[in-house]
Amino acid sequence: MHDVDVVVMGAGVSGLVAARELVKAGKSVRVLEARGRVAGRTDHHVFANGDVIEMGGQWVGGTQTEVLALIDELGLETYKQYDHGDKLVVQGGTVHRVGDQTSDLLQAGGNDMAAIKSELEAMAATVSLSSPWLTEQAAEWDSMTMEAWLVNRTNDDGVRQYWRNMIVAMLCAETPEVSLLHVLFYIKSGDMLDMLFGVTDAAQDSRVVGGTHRISERLADELGTDVVQLNCPVHTITQDADGVRVAYDGGEITAGHVVVTLPPTLAGRLRYSPALPAQRDGLTQQMPMGSVIKIQVAYERPFWREAGLSGQVFSMDDPVGAVLDNTPKGSDQGVLVGFFDGAHARVASRLSRDERQAVAVDCLVRYFGPEAGNVLEYVDKDWTEEEYTRGCYGGRLGAGVWTQYGAALAGPIGRIHWAGAETADVWNGYIDGAIRSAKRAAREILA
Amino acid sequence: MHDVDVVVMGAGVSGLVAARELVKAGKSVRVLEARGRVAGRTDHHVFANGDVIEMGGQWVGGTQTEVLALIDELGLETYKQYDHGDKLVVQGGTVHRVGDQTSDLLQAGGNDMAAIKSELEAMAATVSLSSPWLTEQAAEWDSMTMEAWLVNRTNDDGVRQYWRNMIVAMLCAETPEVSLLHVLFYIKSGDMLDMLFGVTDAAQDSRVVGGTHRISERLADELGTDVVQLNCPVHTITQDADGVRVAYDGGEITAGHVVVTLPPTLAGRLRYSPALPAQRDGLTQQMPMGSVIKIQVAYERPFWREAGLSGQVFSMDDPVGAVLDNTPKGSDQGVLVGFFDGAHARVASRLSRDERQAVAVDCLVRYFGPEAGNVLEYVDKDWTEEEYTRGCYGGRLGAGVWTQYGAALAGPIGRIHWAGAETADVWNGYIDGAIRSAKRAAREILA
Repeated sequence: MHDVDVVVMGAGVSGLVAARELVKAGKSVRVLEARGRVAGRTDHHVFANGDVIEMGGQWVGGTQTEVLALIDELGLETYKQYDHGDKLVVQGGTVHRVGDQTSDLLQAGGNDMAAIKSELEAMAATVSLSSPWLTEQAAEWDSMTMEAWLVNRTNDDGVRQYWRNMIVAMLCAETPEVSLLHVLFYIKSGDMLDMLFGVTDAAQDSRVVGGTHRISERLADELGTDVVQLNCPVHTITQDADGVRVAYDGGEITAGHVVVTLPPTLAGRLRYSPALPAQRDGLTQQMPMGSVIKIQVAYERPFWREAGLSGQVFSMDDPVGAVLDNTPKGSDQGVLVGFFDGAHARVASRLSRDERQAVAVDCLVRYFGPEAGNVLEYVDKDWTEEEYTRGCYGGRLGAGVWTQYGAALAGPIGRIHWAGAETADVWNGYIDGAIRSAKRAAREILA
Repeated sequence: MHDVDVVVMGAGVSGLVAARELVKAGKSVRVLEARGRVAGRTDHHVFANGDVIEMGGQWVGGTQTEVLALIDELGLETYKQYDHGDKLVVQGGTVHRVGDQTSDLLQAGGNDMAAIKSELEAMAATVSLSSPWLTEQAAEWDSMTMEAWLVNRTNDDGVRQYWRNMIVAMLCAETPEVSLLHVLFYIKSGDMLDMLFGVTDAAQDSRVVGGTHRISERLADELGTDVVQLNCPVHTITQDADGVRVAYDGGEITAGHVVVTLPPTLAGRLRYSPALPAQRDGLTQQMPMGSVIKIQVAYERPFWREAGLSGQVFSMDDPVGAVLDNTPKGSDQGVLVGFFDGAHARVASRLSRDERQAVAVDCLVRYFGPEAGNVLEYVDKDWTEEEYTRGCYGGRLGAGVWTQYGAALAGPIGRIHWAGAETADVWNGYIDGAIRSAKRAAREILA
């Protein structure tokens, strides 16, 4: 009776994995993608020399078992993130050179930074990942922002600044903008802070040869062009007892179920008939996306390595607060990747591309010396300007939202199922979480 | 060249006033309203006995000079809100009967409550209404929630509870959900707390004979059915150097300018071509609407008056936290109006109508005795369920948003102008503010 069994909205990793799982189970599926490309938040760029560079989510590793398994299944390969040499930590106008252990970042800041890390992790350990609002201390932790907890916890300006920057690096949002409960949930979801922020054996362990977008490309190839339709922005979802009708620019398609993989703030922009319940609608009104502009800067060679530097920078002073060596495997260039995030991204978003390049390169020269000024190629991607993403890495919840609206984040509504990295309990906000959410949504439909 | 000079989206008070101003100045105007009725958030209900009762914004008075003048111009009349007799303040399981001065509400709670009132007003006095983000202490006040300020200010649980309930009554949002800067802005915008919360000579001074929706009906009648088109949900706004094209279900219309009066969270759900700048889009991602369910309960007569009660209740214990005598002028019935707001509204929204009535009447019986159980008619309106409003009284900003996104709230983008109560600097969130915002938007276009 229906055109297909299931319509999937979005040809990012979660949408394509959901489609793959459903096809495997014998269902007929159509994937509708608003853009003219697949891969959602794992877009890429090709440098003048032919090198592919990742403009969105790029690292995999540690306990991200789902994405590692998928990469393997798809016949793709990974290689290690460059992680040799000293790191730079910038604070109070000084560039500090520290050893190559992840924990040095914490030790550089003194005991209180480490104590706060332990406290956050001890609290995080008690959070219910499947239902954060049912955590024993949910009401208390959701009633305060990360900022409120931090200023109550320590009077040390340097320690506050350190943690503010850590949170921005983690969520692309400022500490007043996120509830303590959300931070704790996210920390546990990503297997604690060393795993989230570490490189070797942690979340930044490896990269995909050719770029992470190849995961989506392989999945789409496997599904075929009959299944994955590009340039189909969906605007309306209508459901009744018989099925669901999904209308997009230029057509519509009927199905038994629909999987919506858009971030909640974008899913809230669709029209639904019947209208969605207040709780779901309210959630979509208050789960904004993070603010980040990712920059990639190519040089003749990775000159920082010669100085014994890893290329890794964590700056509490500068608009480009995090930098890593992003030289692709086998490249004849050297590449640094950096991030404007949170408030810095909002300022940089209003600059012209050239102004932004000047600001970014100025940061890199401060970190690595004048050689960082000899740029071969600069490229950036402002995810807040992308009409069909509107921010990265993902959606976040401010004070009070988890406890009032959390149950509406992933709970299906009739024939509508929600997936995407925002709806994952494990590795929320990551490619790995996107895969988990897709499998969960497919299970809901197959059950 | 264009179908009309200006398209106005929304036939609530702000849209209709904007249209009226533009027509007065010789412009051709079309008003597109998604619903089958005018009046937006000032909807009404007709009781079985024929009495009209207000289901949305209903009071006018005090320094709300714009709405008072408009009522007069339209030939409508006002009458005084009933404000005689004692009030009831409920806290800690006890119903306290207090005198008829507004300030008794504060005095009942002790000195600290009054001290906090003075402090909030002193801070509010320094806020820039036109540009809250430029207020001298904006960064500090926007970095914290109202909850964080409150728990830092006092350890007294009763005082905290009092102010938490005051804020919920004011914004239909909980103290963790709003930034201190937003609360201060709102207090100043409504001419300080006595004006906001008071009855006689304040914001609850008077009602409109026949209901506030008559303001919109008169405005719409004046404009005519050629101008005001109902049942036209707009989905897309396209602009270029020549003009703007506004597409709705069933048609489209071209113009030189468009005035969008939707609350920002709903305006964010439209499609724009070209896509809106990141700052405006980001604002719409994080200005959720308040949560409120308004109830109206009709009785054979206003029996509370016989007991020397005003009908006014402020309860810190109960789901229906605020109650007033809402008997219409000349009615042969007695009517109480009440509000489920904030977290209470979210719980009540998930109940059936009958369950909700039982909860509400139970509150009224606790306040006024068993006679409150003899209900002639109960009606309620859950504004969070209304597809084209999605919450009342209005939009609010959580911690960090005013300073990062405030400039995008009312600033025009090309041919698109923003109006509506959320964009007002004076009487933000009120009918009066809606009128002011409409006149400002009309001035932008006429300039």
